[in-house]
Amino acid sequence: MNIYQEKVRQANQLLDEFGLDMWLVLVRETAEHTDPVLKLLGHLNAVWTAAFIFTRSGERIAITGQGDDEAVRCQGLFDEVLPYTQSIQGVLVEVLDRFQPRTIGVNFSKSDVSADGLTYGLWLSLQDYLKGTPYAGRLVSAESFVEALRGRKMPGELATMRQAIGISMEIYDELTAWLRPGLSEKEIHAYVTGLVKRRGIETSWDAEHCPGLNAGPNSPWGHFGASDEVTRVGETLNMDFGVKVDGFCSDNQRVWYFLRPGETEAPAEVQHIFATVRGAIRAAADFVRPGQQGWEVDAVARQFIVDAGFPEYPHALGHAVGRYAHDGGVGFYPRWERYGDKPYGRIAAGQVFTLELGIRSPYGYISLEEEILVTEHGAEWLWPPQTELMLVKP
Amino acid sequence: MNIYQEKVRQANQLLDEFGLDMWLVLVRETAEHTDPVLKLLGHLNAVWTAAFIFTRSGERIAITGQGDDEAVRCQGLFDEVLPYTQSIQGVLVEVLDRFQPRTIGVNFSKSDVSADGLTYGLWLSLQDYLKGTPYAGRLVSAESFVEALRGRKMPGELATMRQAIGISMEIYDELTAWLRPGLSEKEIHAYVTGLVKRRGIETSWDAEHCPGLNAGPNSPWGHFGASDEVTRVGETLNMDFGVKVDGFCSDNQRVWYFLRPGETEAPAEVQHIFATVRGAIRAAADFVRPGQQGWEVDAVARQFIVDAGFPEYPHALGHAVGRYAHDGGVGFYPRWERYGDKPYGRIAAGQVFTLELGIRSPYGYISLEEEILVTEHGAEWLWPPQTELMLVKP
Repeated sequence: MNIYQEKVRQANQLLDEFGLDMWLVLVRETAEHTDPVLKLLGHLNAVWTAAFIFTRSGERIAITGQGDDEAVRCQGLFDEVLPYTQSIQGVLVEVLDRFQPRTIGVNFSKSDVSADGLTYGLWLSLQDYLKGTPYAGRLVSAESFVEALRGRKMPGELATMRQAIGISMEIYDELTAWLRPGLSEKEIHAYVTGLVKRRGIETSWDAEHCPGLNAGPNSPWGHFGASDEVTRVGETLNMDFGVKVDGFCSDNQRVWYFLRPGETEAPAEVQHIFATVRGAIRAAADFVRPGQQGWEVDAVARQFIVDAGFPEYPHALGHAVGRYAHDGGVGFYPRWERYGDKPYGRIAAGQVFTLELGIRSPYGYISLEEEILVTEHGAEWLWPPQTELMLVKP
Repeated sequence: MNIYQEKVRQANQLLDEFGLDMWLVLVRETAEHTDPVLKLLGHLNAVWTAAFIFTRSGERIAITGQGDDEAVRCQGLFDEVLPYTQSIQGVLVEVLDRFQPRTIGVNFSKSDVSADGLTYGLWLSLQDYLKGTPYAGRLVSAESFVEALRGRKMPGELATMRQAIGISMEIYDELTAWLRPGLSEKEIHAYVTGLVKRRGIETSWDAEHCPGLNAGPNSPWGHFGASDEVTRVGETLNMDFGVKVDGFCSDNQRVWYFLRPGETEAPAEVQHIFATVRGAIRAAADFVRPGQQGWEVDAVARQFIVDAGFPEYPHALGHAVGRYAHDGGVGFYPRWERYGDKPYGRIAAGQVFTLELGIRSPYGYISLEEEILVTEHGAEWLWPPQTELMLVKP
């Protein structure tokens, strides 16, 4: 079974747990605007409006414009691929009549971008298609279902994710061997980009902002990419980076200290900050169990940092990783409005998350990001975490 | 002025024509699910919910999560970039209060994917943000405005599009020199992919389906990519292909005939079909004028084909090209339900469209696709059209 065959079966199987008779994915012109769930399910491109339908009883039916049908059919993921020429409406209503679903999950969500693939215009069109049928009143948000489908990785998905993180760590090692004082963030960005390209792969997010770099204390903080700041002795360098391998992403941060002439280790203050960051991440990892709400995990690390006398980090402790570096769904989000309902999502086995936070200091931004897999018994590092500052000689 | 500076000014200037006081682009986690308009406006990435606001009076204001702000600010496209930490709501309502817009265009459209970037979940969130303000009742579809903004190319955009089509034609020429009988579509696909990669550019749509190929009469028709069918003497090869250069796409089809030993030209039937396809495209190009509705142009080519005794093509005559190969908005669509309101859109100067249609025959699929620029006086070929069948020696 390939990775998509595993995933479409998982979709049918999960419907029951979330009380859905049917899941309906409605898309069009996917090259221009796709639903983020499509990538999970196969190479499902549609030029014309298409419906991908999964039933609780285990059927999978695709309805596509004529001309889009064969490319879907040949993947063998759907029991039927029904083409139409002038309008999808007739075939769509016929399929609904055949199954008479009482609940139809569609992809909208106020909180979760990855479960919110249905555009407002397509929602309005769907209302038109279903006018005069009982089904318009049976549409519900598929949010929790989509989160589970995306979040709970299948064996093939996990194997690919471990490959991605392994390759990213090779690149971190090559970079470490090359680093020296006096390099601009832009030069480091170009070097890392070269290492990625040489492997014929892509970065986990847009290459302009991946790797994200912070050299010393004056580098602009945030999702910025590379500035003109340079590595200097007595300062730190932070890098946020990941690669996409066979469609799956990694996402990690690592931090270096650039020794002054005569120094053999980082100043005590730098070491203390690093240990605090590492300690907060470890405390959160030790705490994680299936069934918890995401905000509870965030709170452990947040309290650790505050107890150590440092300011709270102005973001979430961690997010899911998978097809995207920020994979949506459940995560370790604080209970802030901007995160909507996401902080309240329940952690489940099979999910992969980042644990990430940092502290700004006069030496630079000192931050780490590790990936964990949630198992029945707690968190498992997807890759060994950074335990010591990496030291660059002057 | 760079290509984005041209475009954001155009956005402010167009608002008046469409009776909008304000245009509000609301997005989040754009790496995972972006609004198709963002690419027009700049390198505007947002991790957290962000609003990009354009006013009729010429102001441009961005509201982003803290950490996303600097990367937007440094592009110099917005007069103000306002960061927030916990929720976008307060700053958003403040900005609306400052301008008191009576009409606020947002990106939803039943017909046009490229003007339908707002998800249903974000629409619901926007209702929440604006609850208790007068602005919730002032949201309208920005469809026509977005279509004009996307469709009416600025000088910098047109120059880049001409570059893209030029490079794609170079690749067509290199392929023509290499073609011979006995090549599978998959081999041709791999060869063309190599020519694209060597230039360090991308294909106009996903590489698996670009180029799309049809060798002989048994190749599956539609948006399929490459099958195991092979080029044979006495048959045709059709290719649908384009490249993306600096963010702008080309999209063309070309057709070859593979001579049998002893033949010096294609059989009369093949030539007649080719001439019919070419004639229909030319008739449509001669007909195009600003102010027409798209379906009127489609009807000219469609009637030409029917009058020649061939079946109608089961798709539209042409679509806009630009940031995407299928750029959305106005196009030469027949009045079929699946095209919604799009057939009724008005053609304007500055727009670039394809003209494409084909006829299936016992020799293979014989189809052409050309690109035109609409000017005040009619259509101008963006590149010389194919006027003769290309002949491949046995």
